[in-house]
Amino acid sequence: MVHRHERPRRLQVIGGGRAGRSFALALAQAGWRVGRVLGRGDQVADAADGVDLVIIATPDAAIAEVAASISPRAATVVAHVSGSLGLDVLGPHGRRAAVHPLVAMPSPEIGAERLISGAWFAVAGDPVARHVVDDLGGRWFEVADADRAAYHAAAVIASNHVVALLGQAERVAAGAGVPFEAYLDLVRATIDNVAELGPAAALTGPAARGDWDTIDRHLAALDPAERDAYQAMVALARRLVADP
Amino acid sequence: MVHRHERPRRLQVIGGGRAGRSFALALAQAGWRVGRVLGRGDQVADAADGVDLVIIATPDAAIAEVAASISPRAATVVAHVSGSLGLDVLGPHGRRAAVHPLVAMPSPEIGAERLISGAWFAVAGDPVARHVVDDLGGRWFEVADADRAAYHAAAVIASNHVVALLGQAERVAAGAGVPFEAYLDLVRATIDNVAELGPAAALTGPAARGDWDTIDRHLAALDPAERDAYQAMVALARRLVADP
Repeated sequence: MVHRHERPRRLQVIGGGRAGRSFALALAQAGWRVGRVLGRGDQVADAADGVDLVIIATPDAAIAEVAASISPRAATVVAHVSGSLGLDVLGPHGRRAAVHPLVAMPSPEIGAERLISGAWFAVAGDPVARHVVDDLGGRWFEVADADRAAYHAAAVIASNHVVALLGQAERVAAGAGVPFEAYLDLVRATIDNVAELGPAAALTGPAARGDWDTIDRHLAALDPAERDAYQAMVALARRLVADP
Repeated sequence: MVHRHERPRRLQVIGGGRAGRSFALALAQAGWRVGRVLGRGDQVADAADGVDLVIIATPDAAIAEVAASISPRAATVVAHVSGSLGLDVLGPHGRRAAVHPLVAMPSPEIGAERLISGAWFAVAGDPVARHVVDDLGGRWFEVADADRAAYHAAAVIASNHVVALLGQAERVAAGAGVPFEAYLDLVRATIDNVAELGPAAALTGPAARGDWDTIDRHLAALDPAERDAYQAMVALARRLVADP
C-alpha cells in the first residue's frame, strides 16, 4: 500500500454484490475515502460528483446502461471490474478504466482480503487503474480490448473448467465406490507441480506416455456421456507433448 | 505407524524406479526390514524367499512377466503398486495384493515422504495390503478388479487432465500477452473451493450461469484447435449444473 498521492483518493462504488463490496472494503483499508456503496434503486446520475473514481461492479449486462446514466465529469475516472468486457462499454466518459482481479471473491470479507494480498490484476485505460493496484499492493498487466476475450477465456479455463473436470472425476470415482476426498491431495500436488515446472513438464500419465491400452481401458469403463470430455483432454495432453 | 505385529515384517521390492524406491524408503521408515531393491538385470526367481511381501513396482507392461518368474511361496504375498491393473496380472501366486497410493512420487525421497504423510491408498486382495497402509499411517479403500479402470480413470482426470487444461490456459493467456503465473493463485483458490464445497457448489462462471454471449465471445477469440476442449468443458459444467 504505497501512497504517492497527497490527499486520500475518493471512491464511489456502484453495485452492492460481492465484487463491489470487496473493492470498497479493500480500498478503504488501503487509505481511500469510500462512499456508501450504491445498489439497486439508488440514483447513480451524480455518482461521479466529488470523487476521483467510480467503480461499476454490477453484472456485465448492466454495465453499459449504468455507465450511460452517470453524468460525465471530466476529472472523474469511470471504471468497471469485469473480466470479459473492454473499455467500450463505458461509453461517453472521457477517462475510462478497467481493473479486473484474478481472484475469486466469494464474500466481501474474503474478497477484500484477497485483493490486498498481492493479487494479480488485468488493467486497461486510465493510469488510475494501475494506481488502484499499486495501492492494494497488487501486481498488474495491461490487457487491450482486442485481447480481452482471450484473457478472460484463459481465466475461465483455469478456474471454471478445472472445477467441471473435478466434477467429472467425482462422478467417475463414485462409480468405482471411491470417495472424491481421496483424490484431493493428488490434485493439490498436481497444481504444485504445474506451478514449479509449468504444465508441459508437469504432465504425466497414460496420454503423456502414449499408453493407448490404458486409455482404451478407461474409455471402456466410462459412462458414454463422459467419453467426449475424456477424449478432448487426451487430445489437449497430446498437444502439450507435441509442442511443450 | 501402528505395529500390531511382533517382529519386523520383511519386504523385497522389484523395480528400481521412483515408485519402488519410494515404497522401500517409506516402509523402512515404518519399521519394515527392507532388502536391496532389485532392478534390471537382477535375478528375481528367489525374490519371495524369506520375506513376507514382494512388491513389484515395474512399469505396468512388465508386471505379469515379473510375477510369473517369481517362484511361488505359500506364505509370501506378491503385490503390485499399479493404479490401473487388477490382481489377475499377478498370476500363479496364492496370496496376491495391490497397493496403489493416490500420490505423485517425483523422486524416492519426496515419494516416501508423501507415502508416510496420511496418504490415501487403493487396496485389493490379501489383508497385508491394508497392513502396509496402516503401517504407513495412511487411509485405504478397497477397489475390486471390476472397478479398477474407473478408479484409475478418475485419478487420471483429476491429475493429468487438469494439467492438460492448465496447458491450454497457458497457451490462451500467452495469446493475450498475459503470464500464466498470474492465474496460479486463482487455480489454488479454485481447488480450495472444490475441497470445501464440492465441485457442483464451487462451479461459477459463464457456463454455470448460462451466459452464452460470453461463451460465444470466448469461442470466437480462441484458436480453432482449442475449441473442442473448451466446448467439452462447457458441456461438463452444464452437466454439473443440471445434476449437482
